[in-house]
Amino acid sequence: MPASKEILLTDSSSTTVMPKVSKKTDFQLVRVKNTWCRIKEGEPLHGSEDEITVSQAKIAEIISDGEISWTIEAPIYFCYKVVETCSLLNPANPTLLYGHIRDPEKLEKALNNKEVQKRFIVMDKTVDELYGSIVRKYFDDNYVQHKILSLPTTEETKSMDLVLDILQEVQSFGIDRRTEPIIAIGGGVCLDIVGLAASLYRRRTPYIRVPTTLLSYVDASVGAKNGVNFLQCKNKLGTYVPPVATFLDRVFIQTIPRQHISNGLGEILKMALMKHKDLFDLLTTHGKFLLDTKFQSHNGLVDHGDAALKTTRIAIETMLEELAPNLWEDDLNRLVDFGHLISPELEMRALPSLMHGEAVNVDMAFMTYLSYVKGLLSDKEKTRIIQCMSTLELPVWHKECTWHLIKKALRERLKHSAGQMRMPLPTGLGTAGTLVLGGLIV
Amino acid sequence: MPASKEILLTDSSSTTVMPKVSKKTDFQLVRVKNTWCRIKEGEPLHGSEDEITVSQAKIAEIISDGEISWTIEAPIYFCYKVVETCSLLNPANPTLLYGHIRDPEKLEKALNNKEVQKRFIVMDKTVDELYGSIVRKYFDDNYVQHKILSLPTTEETKSMDLVLDILQEVQSFGIDRRTEPIIAIGGGVCLDIVGLAASLYRRRTPYIRVPTTLLSYVDASVGAKNGVNFLQCKNKLGTYVPPVATFLDRVFIQTIPRQHISNGLGEILKMALMKHKDLFDLLTTHGKFLLDTKFQSHNGLVDHGDAALKTTRIAIETMLEELAPNLWEDDLNRLVDFGHLISPELEMRALPSLMHGEAVNVDMAFMTYLSYVKGLLSDKEKTRIIQCMSTLELPVWHKECTWHLIKKALRERLKHSAGQMRMPLPTGLGTAGTLVLGGLIV
Repeated sequence: MPASKEILLTDSSSTTVMPKVSKKTDFQLVRVKNTWCRIKEGEPLHGSEDEITVSQAKIAEIISDGEISWTIEAPIYFCYKVVETCSLLNPANPTLLYGHIRDPEKLEKALNNKEVQKRFIVMDKTVDELYGSIVRKYFDDNYVQHKILSLPTTEETKSMDLVLDILQEVQSFGIDRRTEPIIAIGGGVCLDIVGLAASLYRRRTPYIRVPTTLLSYVDASVGAKNGVNFLQCKNKLGTYVPPVATFLDRVFIQTIPRQHISNGLGEILKMALMKHKDLFDLLTTHGKFLLDTKFQSHNGLVDHGDAALKTTRIAIETMLEELAPNLWEDDLNRLVDFGHLISPELEMRALPSLMHGEAVNVDMAFMTYLSYVKGLLSDKEKTRIIQCMSTLELPVWHKECTWHLIKKALRERLKHSAGQMRMPLPTGLGTAGTLVLGGLIV
Repeated sequence: MPASKEILLTDSSSTTVMPKVSKKTDFQLVRVKNTWCRIKEGEPLHGSEDEITVSQAKIAEIISDGEISWTIEAPIYFCYKVVETCSLLNPANPTLLYGHIRDPEKLEKALNNKEVQKRFIVMDKTVDELYGSIVRKYFDDNYVQHKILSLPTTEETKSMDLVLDILQEVQSFGIDRRTEPIIAIGGGVCLDIVGLAASLYRRRTPYIRVPTTLLSYVDASVGAKNGVNFLQCKNKLGTYVPPVATFLDRVFIQTIPRQHISNGLGEILKMALMKHKDLFDLLTTHGKFLLDTKFQSHNGLVDHGDAALKTTRIAIETMLEELAPNLWEDDLNRLVDFGHLISPELEMRALPSLMHGEAVNVDMAFMTYLSYVKGLLSDKEKTRIIQCMSTLELPVWHKECTWHLIKKALRERLKHSAGQMRMPLPTGLGTAGTLVLGGLIV
């Protein structure tokens, strides 16, 4: 063994404190022909516009005594589409195959392309039983070489093992990493697993989400998150890589049980309470109708108008507003966290008696009372909120939701929030404030 | 089973082609108090500057017949530091503990923080044998509660299994996801595995790279990539999440074998050939000295100046220039791919007889001859390049590098390059062009 210890410590005297800044230079990055080079910020660029490219990435160099540091700041632009459509599985509708292509020229080329396309599809097993034959017909009729992997996707199977199983099949099937996105058709668990698999494969392979439950339609479909459970912890492993596209077709919702519709309505109510009075009114007035008709009312009935269409559209728009500026969740100030402070702990404890949206609702009901007690909400408003929850057939309490559990959940939350608890609270119907530790920011 | 097939196909007539664009609206996202909302682009914003935040994320909404689509474009800013320092493991040097903190106020706070810090460290087993006691002393002397996981990190163990093993230990040790970065100390394989583990844990946990080989010092340390092997394929699974910081200390290089120095010099030569004549001259003149002294010459010898310091500094600067504008490798036009067209295939085939930088060099030697044959390089320049390779004790040929292998490797490359082969080639000493299929872009 070399005398590394001795060598390492010889010049210790010179670095007993953080080195002092001696010289800082900010560089921008410019490509001339095919070579990137650093140019001091503020210095003129030489060359014509079509010869040079200026990057948005920047490098700050600090040279100090015995040390040099470069700080790199570089943006990555994520771009993805969310499309609400109908007849997604009609073989004449090209959306599922090409709807993710944004560039009209590339779309034109893809539509006229005579080469055989390949698609790898992961479908939840229950979805396969209900829609498998239609999905197969879609790809057959479009002469697309395809492999459909039908998997039981539940909280119990939501693991890295399943991710690797999927990727083994992807590898043996073979897809073009740039032009043949992996397609996931199923509920939130299915979309989460496939999203993680695709994000890992070759460091990022495009994927498409087709949600088949109301909850995943308005929630998992819209953002960038994916993941799997690990060591009994929900979504402990994952990434923030959005799909290239999400295709939404309410037709799938017709086959889910009534309780699952309530479950999805819980997340929709969240957005209504936080920021959209009209959505709250829609849910109050048409909630029962939406449950009864399972969101299949888009042909329009006079007394309920297009309640299903309006409800999902506003839910998605308000979710996009909140998620798009904060795709990687760097900002801890998040209205979408409403209903998600106590519920993770509660959901785990109460499994399988509470679904996600139901646990979220119990959390929201508690916070509504808290808001009332704090004087942020009137008695009438509180009552209207609780009544709406009841209309949506959502539970407002659960026997596992004890003081002990609530305190434990909030402590856990605090631990992961850089020491500052931020509690979004309703301050009216469709308006919110954020309680920070003891003080309120509205 | 419901009659979903029938329902799905009823309104097929209306969607036989992609719907025509009927109305497109561009929105920007603005936060007023705590709520994000969409504002039509161009419309004036109401409110004072300290009340509103404008996001760089944008949403384009297209409403067409029976379909609505939202296209989300949102940037994520990656920010990381690369620091060349010395005496990194001197307990009096706070860099390893706090050098990743960019905000001076936060740094001040961290340095004066009296709470017990925790750090989880993964170290390559060989590195542990050489430096383990110094690393332990560093954390002990700084009263940092730490867990050191010592692992054999080789191409054979570079798998998702090892990632999960690491994360199991991380979970049971417990770290603050925001303030206690995971530290990796080792060669490229170790840094890649830990980088992936941290990127997955809670969807992103900060990590720090401390490279201990010359190759990882100038290569793995600088960019965003991490990954593991999967199904006998090199780095098939991974992400593009950079570390919060990389700390470089040449002292580690003293303990690596001479062949490993050559290995690292291969990647340095790549940058020299592609874009830096001075670096090429440094390697030509001081290459043997650098091999003999293992980059430990920073105290300066008259006839070789600070060759080690200059060499690593230019290598890192040129790599940063090329990687920072293209962190997620969206742009396929990459000079850093020089030496990486044939070598992946060759390296796999020749394992373990060729190291990574050696395989890269065989590739570069072939491309140098190709460039000469194409008339892009003079005979004299070609000879000088090959002589430099010889000075650096790098192989210019290998018996496995057959025509068959070369063609296979290039075909494979073409498959993953959106149908366009881009071959960076030297067009002089320190200048490059890119051969695209048959045409040359210089």
